Amino acid sequence: MDPRIEDHAEVIVDHSVGVRPDDEVIVSGHPVAEDLVAAIVRLCGKRGANVTTTLRTSQVSAAYKRAIDVDDISLSEVSLAMVEAADVYIGISADTNTHESGDIDPDKNAAMAQANKPIQETYLNKRWVGTQYPAPGNAQDAEMSTATYESFVWGAINKDWAAVREHQQQLVDLLNPAEEVRIVSGDTTDIRMSIAGNPAQNDYAERNLPGGEVFTAPVPNSVNGEVVFDKPLMAQGREIQDVRLRFEGGEVIEHAAAKNEEVLAAVLDTDAGARRLGELGIGMNRDIDQFSYNMLFDEKMGDTVHMALGRAYEDTVGEDNKQNESAVHMDMIVDMSDQSRIEVDGEVIQRNGRFQFEAGFEAN
Amino acid sequence: MDPRIEDHAEVIVDHSVGVRPDDEVIVSGHPVAEDLVAAIVRLCGKRGANVTTTLRTSQVSAAYKRAIDVDDISLSEVSLAMVEAADVYIGISADTNTHESGDIDPDKNAAMAQANKPIQETYLNKRWVGTQYPAPGNAQDAEMSTATYESFVWGAINKDWAAVREHQQQLVDLLNPAEEVRIVSGDTTDIRMSIAGNPAQNDYAERNLPGGEVFTAPVPNSVNGEVVFDKPLMAQGREIQDVRLRFEGGEVIEHAAAKNEEVLAAVLDTDAGARRLGELGIGMNRDIDQFSYNMLFDEKMGDTVHMALGRAYEDTVGEDNKQNESAVHMDMIVDMSDQSRIEVDGEVIQRNGRFQFEAGFEAN
Repeated sequence: MDPRIEDHAEVIVDHSVGVRPDDEVIVSGHPVAEDLVAAIVRLCGKRGANVTTTLRTSQVSAAYKRAIDVDDISLSEVSLAMVEAADVYIGISADTNTHESGDIDPDKNAAMAQANKPIQETYLNKRWVGTQYPAPGNAQDAEMSTATYESFVWGAINKDWAAVREHQQQLVDLLNPAEEVRIVSGDTTDIRMSIAGNPAQNDYAERNLPGGEVFTAPVPNSVNGEVVFDKPLMAQGREIQDVRLRFEGGEVIEHAAAKNEEVLAAVLDTDAGARRLGELGIGMNRDIDQFSYNMLFDEKMGDTVHMALGRAYEDTVGEDNKQNESAVHMDMIVDMSDQSRIEVDGEVIQRNGRFQFEAGFEAN
Repeated sequence: MDPRIEDHAEVIVDHSVGVRPDDEVIVSGHPVAEDLVAAIVRLCGKRGANVTTTLRTSQVSAAYKRAIDVDDISLSEVSLAMVEAADVYIGISADTNTHESGDIDPDKNAAMAQANKPIQETYLNKRWVGTQYPAPGNAQDAEMSTATYESFVWGAINKDWAAVREHQQQLVDLLNPAEEVRIVSGDTTDIRMSIAGNPAQNDYAERNLPGGEVFTAPVPNSVNGEVVFDKPLMAQGREIQDVRLRFEGGEVIEHAAAKNEEVLAAVLDTDAGARRLGELGIGMNRDIDQFSYNMLFDEKMGDTVHMALGRAYEDTVGEDNKQNESAVHMDMIVDMSDQSRIEVDGEVIQRNGRFQFEAGFEAN
């Protein structure tokens, strides 16, 4: 077995979810990730835990969705009972063809998601982690060979997360007392927002593996200025390029895109909250050094900033602040590696990707 | 998808377990059987049922067994909760390497089986079926190419089971009022036993797929005579050939084998019930025309009879009769196609494989 798979399993079992004796663990993954599943199960056995593995192939789930009448869709009591009996849920994304469910009626997908919401709500209250296995289908989406994608995925995942936590905490400590953040990049992006009273979260790979970002929520009405997101993003199965947004009083008042602008317009029209930002995130995982069309990685890319239109995470909104509500949460990324800076209350804390607390930082 | 897979799925879903709207169905299978799992799941969707699939690879389960300390083995609450919430359990045997668990300490296997007994007891009280997918590892065990094994497996499975039921019922009706059965084959086998008061069961592929046998239990102390089992059998991972047993008053008083006789001796010494017969079965599935080292098929082979040392099935023992108890249930097969006959209360009901109720039967 590839030793990087054993390392990946160790990060999952001992860092992300911390498996303990007598834990009831569910491992859910595509069979293409069998080696990782086996490595996880072995470590769980060593820790004296019980493990149940579930097969999730998109061919099988798509076969079900195609066959069932939308009116017959209901909560899976078996899946709910499983998750209720578990202490830990480990979800592994992996596929041999990521378009296997491409022809499913969106209404059915929505009805399935709605019917099985109690399952998601149940596992979100357990110890859980979502991670990625470098399967051929995912390598294809990332436009890499499987071998290159393996190096990319395991490079981003297999690291000393306690050290990462400590490093990122320096940014958390800068953001927590802050009032205003300003993001400037080239001559196309200059945007300001208040984060006053909203806590910054340190993502050191507990629930997302890889982790590697610090994120908080802007105060909904406080966003002003213009931003160009120069990394591509996927929405409704299509790639939107070079999104440009102008904000006034927190709301998007102008929008444009070089490709699939109508998809962007549809997202903005979803609901009132979709025209406002719900997240400001700062990517700090420098082992993620290229875009892979997978938000689990892209949003953590080193030397980037991302902002999400739509829903804000509850744990990033202070008690006295308003949480932006929306059915949408669409992350968009700005490259900060060149001609860029982040200012906090007028002080530059990052320039061209380099933080104030790092060697090589230039204040002016 | 191979149309034989769709037929197999239809037999499972509509005949064996009869999936109905709102059923909660578990499908458990190795990923190599993904096409069959997908076909089953699709039909369950059409019937308006809910389905949960579980990944069971021997690589993964062996990894767990190797890692866990025998004292840490305990009931999987997640697996129990799943099965408790289900109405239907579909178990698919399939493997790419049937020796993946070959190096597991037998004590661990026994401890796992013991700890998870409540799971088995729970699903045995649901609607359930066990079947076989023609995977390469199983074809290898059967000493056939995968293509040949596919024809063999689907030939035995994809048939009109309602017609089989009706055909086999003729034998059930002959056996139910009977007192004594005598099996004669060549000059090596001549054995008599009472089945008085013990019901005969018609296996038309409800819980076993393929089905195709009629079986009952001998009265434990009534077995007398000698039998040579001329088909090989597997016990404790080894092949025993040409087993010869002599019974007196129901008990094995002489035994011999051409190969691995010591394994046979060990089986006989397991407990008191292991020296007595627990089953008399008559194989009637003529699409199973060769031995495949898989008892799910072998015991149903057309023109054969099998007898099992050890435990009798509860539903084959009449109210006033004794049920043979044992930890063992070892099926052994006699070829009845030539120089052979079955007599019931002195009347020949089968000669050279041909039954009284079939064309070509010769009474004398």
